[in-house]
Amino acid sequence: MPMFGLIPKEEKFFEMFKIMTQNIVEGAKLLKEMLNNFPERQAIQQKIKKIEHEGDNQTHEIIKKLNKSFITPFDREDIYALAATLDDILDLIDAASHRIVMYNIDHPTPAAKGLAFIILKACESVDKAVAKLGDKFEHFSEFCVEINSLENEGDRICHESISELFQNEKDPIQLIKWKEIYETLEKVIDKCEDTANILESVVLKNA
Amino acid sequence: MPMFGLIPKEEKFFEMFKIMTQNIVEGAKLLKEMLNNFPERQAIQQKIKKIEHEGDNQTHEIIKKLNKSFITPFDREDIYALAATLDDILDLIDAASHRIVMYNIDHPTPAAKGLAFIILKACESVDKAVAKLGDKFEHFSEFCVEINSLENEGDRICHESISELFQNEKDPIQLIKWKEIYETLEKVIDKCEDTANILESVVLKNA
Amino acid sequence: MPMFGLIPKEEKFFEMFKIMTQNIVEGAKLLKEMLNNFPERQAIQQKIKKIEHEGDNQTHEIIKKLNKSFITPFDREDIYALAATLDDILDLIDAASHRIVMYNIDHPTPAAKGLAFIILKACESVDKAVAKLGDKFEHFSEFCVEINSLENEGDRICHESISELFQNEKDPIQLIKWKEIYETLEKVIDKCEDTANILESVVLKNA
Repeated sequence: MPMFGLIPKEEKFFEMFKIMTQNIVEGAKLLKEMLNNFPERQAIQQKIKKIEHEGDNQTHEIIKKLNKSFITPFDREDIYALAATLDDILDLIDAASHRIVMYNIDHPTPAAKGLAFIILKACESVDKAVAKLGDKFEHFSEFCVEINSLENEGDRICHESISELFQNEKDPIQLIKWKEIYETLEKVIDKCEDTANILESVVLKNA
Repeated sequence: MPMFGLIPKEEKFFEMFKIMTQNIVEGAKLLKEMLNNFPERQAIQQKIKKIEHEGDNQTHEIIKKLNKSFITPFDREDIYALAATLDDILDLIDAASHRIVMYNIDHPTPAAKGLAFIILKACESVDKAVAKLGDKFEHFSEFCVEINSLENEGDRICHESISELFQNEKDPIQLIKWKEIYETLEKVIDKCEDTANILESVVLKNA
Repeated sequence: MPMFGLIPKEEKFFEMFKIMTQNIVEGAKLLKEMLNNFPERQAIQQKIKKIEHEGDNQTHEIIKKLNKSFITPFDREDIYALAATLDDILDLIDAASHRIVMYNIDHPTPAAKGLAFIILKACESVDKAVAKLGDKFEHFSEFCVEINSLENEGDRICHESISELFQNEKDPIQLIKWKEIYETLEKVIDKCEDTANILESVVLKNA
């Protein structure tokens, strides 16, 4: 990746992570758009799939660079864990959007839209928190607090929606579909929280 | 945590793990109580939730201490893995009890009670095995053997119960509910076995 | 394990991994046989269970050896990750075959047979790629490319089959059974891909 050639060594990782989190925010925006512009869901799913492939390549580049670097800006296993969890976020955004199309869902629910909104907020906070890694960690912890509070809210919506499904949805096949979609959406936010935990750990070690 | 201030460095981790496993045993006792005192299930679920939050804080304290410690009583990655797997045990106890309430289960099954009994036994063995970490590992392996045999028994009950559900439960929504509750209960015991594997690995390295 | 006594130190790990991957290929062969010789499924499931137990022992031996070795042929954490992911492959082959019996499936589908075929191909590639670890990595990357392409094909079959279930299967309990069997079969191939990723990382570090 020649574009990094002139930047001092340590910053290449920060730059690579920044590209990765910006790609994640793109994916989260598309997921939200999908649920708010439902007739276009198939075309939007294709775009998410493409973004997810780009994410795979970006992860691969970081791992490759990691394996070739003697000196890293923070612990090797934290770089690996961070890259892996960021990759998981996009995989799960893709899995959620793919299920919506694969299960022939005919209209989105308010809860699904609510979760997609929270996912976008959480991904934006991940993007901002990662940006602080190369930047003296200022205001870093407020992004982590924000992600934790978004995760609690996502949990609440997901649990209430599944509870409601079990009370009101009489068609078991519809119940199976929506239960899995809600759970997949919740997992995206859980992964954002895992990312926040890794970042906190990195900051603590380097404080 | 000033209460650890006068204890020699290494033992703080042992003390912190002991507090964590005692908390887990509390959670497992409440899960068993919930299934045997079913009218009180909602109140007991609230108590389990509180114990799970305490577990989160305890895990966080260990990770924080780990990140700040230059010298650790055993390998850094094993301390991390042990804290993470102990945290998972309580998360899964909470997830199981939460599903019982969320899914509006109206009576507990003998299999669920049997699994809760095994979970408590396994958590007590985890507590005893962790206590041996700071104590020359005497009688250590018998706790690991015990956990492995509890895991086999838990597996058997879970598989038989799910097999029976598929044979006799005609209501697919009931089947979905109980299948997931059994699987979540089984995962608690699997996590106890993961913990035993990590402990065995630690003992082997330090023997 | 006295059979390794005369072989130079580093090669013992390679030898142990080779035994492990050959065992995995045996398991994959039995899974394919099960689906093509369905009246014998219970007896074949017993054989798979036995192979899975052997795999557990092999994993345990590698971890034990790892914990006792000061010098290892490649990074300690990669040996651990490789052993764990190989163990997972067999666990999932066992889980898939066990569900086929436990769920009282009365006939195999073409998609299940297709997935079992791909699983065998992927396990054979894992076996060949692992064999290259001790052998200057020649033709190594072609096995990894092969595993990636098998994983894409497995994904496609699995997604199409589940999509079809949601369109045509009117019995929700049948849908639950087959959805989980397809997903478990897909997870086997995903684990083969995880293995390929670990192997690529090892080769990159040691190139």
